[in-house]
Amino acid sequence: MPRQNPPADNHPARLSLISRHLAPVYPINTPYAVERLPDTIDTSLLPKTQSRSLSTSPKMSSQPAHPTLLIPGPIEFDDAVLQSMSHFSESHVAAGFVATFGETLSMLRKLFQTSDPSSQPFVLSGSGTLGWDLVAANLIEPGEDVLVLGTGYFSDGFADCLRVYGATVTELKAPVGTKPQLPEIEKALSEKRYKAITVTHVDTSTGVLSELQQLSALVRRVSPDTLIIVDGVCSVACEEIDFDAWGLDGVVTASQKAIGCPAGLSISMFSGRAMKAAQNRKTPPASYFASMKNWTPSKSSLHSLSPVPHLADHQTVMQNYEAKKPSYFATPSPQLIHALHTALSQILAKPVSERFAAHRAASDRIKKAIADLGLKQVAANPDEQAHGMSAIYLPEGVKGPDLLPILAKKGVVFAGGIHKEIVAKYIRFGHMGVSVLDPKRNDVDHAIKSLREALAECGYKKE
Amino acid sequence: MPRQNPPADNHPARLSLISRHLAPVYPINTPYAVERLPDTIDTSLLPKTQSRSLSTSPKMSSQPAHPTLLIPGPIEFDDAVLQSMSHFSESHVAAGFVATFGETLSMLRKLFQTSDPSSQPFVLSGSGTLGWDLVAANLIEPGEDVLVLGTGYFSDGFADCLRVYGATVTELKAPVGTKPQLPEIEKALSEKRYKAITVTHVDTSTGVLSELQQLSALVRRVSPDTLIIVDGVCSVACEEIDFDAWGLDGVVTASQKAIGCPAGLSISMFSGRAMKAAQNRKTPPASYFASMKNWTPSKSSLHSLSPVPHLADHQTVMQNYEAKKPSYFATPSPQLIHALHTALSQILAKPVSERFAAHRAASDRIKKAIADLGLKQVAANPDEQAHGMSAIYLPEGVKGPDLLPILAKKGVVFAGGIHKEIVAKYIRFGHMGVSVLDPKRNDVDHAIKSLREALAECGYKKE
Repeated sequence: MPRQNPPADNHPARLSLISRHLAPVYPINTPYAVERLPDTIDTSLLPKTQSRSLSTSPKMSSQPAHPTLLIPGPIEFDDAVLQSMSHFSESHVAAGFVATFGETLSMLRKLFQTSDPSSQPFVLSGSGTLGWDLVAANLIEPGEDVLVLGTGYFSDGFADCLRVYGATVTELKAPVGTKPQLPEIEKALSEKRYKAITVTHVDTSTGVLSELQQLSALVRRVSPDTLIIVDGVCSVACEEIDFDAWGLDGVVTASQKAIGCPAGLSISMFSGRAMKAAQNRKTPPASYFASMKNWTPSKSSLHSLSPVPHLADHQTVMQNYEAKKPSYFATPSPQLIHALHTALSQILAKPVSERFAAHRAASDRIKKAIADLGLKQVAANPDEQAHGMSAIYLPEGVKGPDLLPILAKKGVVFAGGIHKEIVAKYIRFGHMGVSVLDPKRNDVDHAIKSLREALAECGYKKE
Repeated sequence: MPRQNPPADNHPARLSLISRHLAPVYPINTPYAVERLPDTIDTSLLPKTQSRSLSTSPKMSSQPAHPTLLIPGPIEFDDAVLQSMSHFSESHVAAGFVATFGETLSMLRKLFQTSDPSSQPFVLSGSGTLGWDLVAANLIEPGEDVLVLGTGYFSDGFADCLRVYGATVTELKAPVGTKPQLPEIEKALSEKRYKAITVTHVDTSTGVLSELQQLSALVRRVSPDTLIIVDGVCSVACEEIDFDAWGLDGVVTASQKAIGCPAGLSISMFSGRAMKAAQNRKTPPASYFASMKNWTPSKSSLHSLSPVPHLADHQTVMQNYEAKKPSYFATPSPQLIHALHTALSQILAKPVSERFAAHRAASDRIKKAIADLGLKQVAANPDEQAHGMSAIYLPEGVKGPDLLPILAKKGVVFAGGIHKEIVAKYIRFGHMGVSVLDPKRNDVDHAIKSLREALAECGYKKE
């Protein structure tokens, strides 16, 4: 691919790698302002693949103009978060970095709304998918039964992962665009003793939102020992999750969606009950990298890389980080952890309830605009519609491969379909994080306007 | 932890997120110059944990002054690499990013010196440890025998990982500071049929270097079907590895060592023979996230997120990326991939042989200086000494917990011991990447001078 770029050394806009994440509190999203775009950038020199929409996409902050990424993750990132990615190199066991990691884990407790000290956060290098391995390899033993609530591509993936580690999986599948309902879940739970039930809070393939609070109450009533595991990849930080109050046992997610940190981190929270299930399993954990036990070192298997006393037994590496003590099993990514620290600091600068409400309000506005265009959601029932994304059926005669490139030319990147039963029939619009929270950004209005124009260019007229 | 930092918005040195990695060729390490340190930074405002050595550490590039990280990974990073970490958000299936990922995979072939089209690179979100899982879960079936050449903490770890996935492991252990020798390896290989032999090219716990070329020739002669797997975490990009010529079957490594890219990526290369072993296994792969098969999607399990035709069967996700076709199993980290692209572009701007020779020359100089101080290497035999790190025995009466903080005050971060048999008796000095390759940096001389002074402050006198 031919590429052109101004040589780094001649470029007048110098990089400051000062770690802004260290400021104690972040004004949320304030860095976004048109005037902060360096006016010294000669946009004609930008590489073509990244500059095609310079004339139409909204100018943002100090990032070079680029098409607005409105897929259901990765999302657009805040300047300060991206700057934290450039943090200078540090030892993964140095006091400064360990403090940053520790604060990050403590902040995750607040995001997940858990104050129970037995809850355990994990942050591992990996993608969201690794969270499934973490559940399947540690909480479930070969032959144990798991009930998977089927909502689409991603619940199917979780089921596949559980099977790899030997679980006996029962999938309770719902028609495309819906979710299994409480009465059928109750019936299933009463027929067999399940070690765990898994629910995909938002299935990114359909935009179907599952309800957790009543589900959890049902499980506790009908099958109190069953662990309640939530795939929160497309829900954490945009949909309400009240870990303690709802009695959840595990929520796994990733960094690049509503949390607003670049991809590369598997982020999860487990209850004391789940941690106990992992500790008390009869068979050894069925993974090495994703083994909770390996993050629970004994004196003989773990050696601090720093001149500090050896760690007490049964203290996890994550617990040590949170206690600001250096610890080691596998090397974390200091840069990604700094970025996550920045993102969480921004999120927690306001009550999380406000964040969820803001996503809900933006989603309502977007779904109304989509309805006004005469289009239908894949998730037909408003109560089952996610608030951080919309899966939208294409109108008759309009094809994704025609529509999406037109949108891209207008500076808006939507995603195509992924659910195999309807793959060519719909598109996906992600609306999480700064794109809906930053009042200075025009991302949503621009996207809706562009969608309207692009549909017209494809020959669509509202009936 | 109390923290102080200039508020982001008042800071005069603005961040440019222009992706310099897109320049076609990189002048190696040129960004390092004292005059590029922004003189507008008020260093008194920097957080204390990161500024303690501002007066003594060499000033570098546009990164804020910080202690020089000379542990055996993570290493100091080049400015352009760190800048690539701040790349604006892109879809992981967008043409621009897919091209970057594809070029990255192609460049890895050059770094590993393989032109055999059946060789297969993998880049996954994770740490170096995940490479062990990749080997153990895909190439080895439960009950199969693996011969592990024992050189220290990290070969023990590889053995543990193999056992987790059901391998029957034979460890051929050598005394601390040495490696198993060819005659005993030949004897072991002739006694049993091993599916694979693993060798830790550089054991980061001891600084012992294993020789690969003669080892490989021996294995091919005595046990031709045995897969030759190399843990290259602390060797790839600083020690010579000639994948094709030496007939290697797998080399696993991480991003944050001699490759010079921040932590967060598991990077590996497998031969056609190894790929065939993974494809032909009788039992399914024993991991989901680290399953080579899951990165080899079938039509039913993989759906492109982009409006492109579905992928052909038996084409791996990695192969699609390299062919610049969008593909999906789990979301990669675009920012880390951009940084890796930049790092590899810098590495390949010169013949890799020159890079290996430069590391060798720097290592010779460092080891001579250490000997001149009257200190001994953990790896006693010069032929068995790594060229990217030195594990150094402390002199009688000097303790790591006394010495390392003094070094840190002088702006030099070394690592403590990690091998359980000698953990308190030695320290580790990493000398990889820009710290030894950039003529403008004074890292090595400063480190040696600081070590001499710190030893004196601890009361050490050369006998």
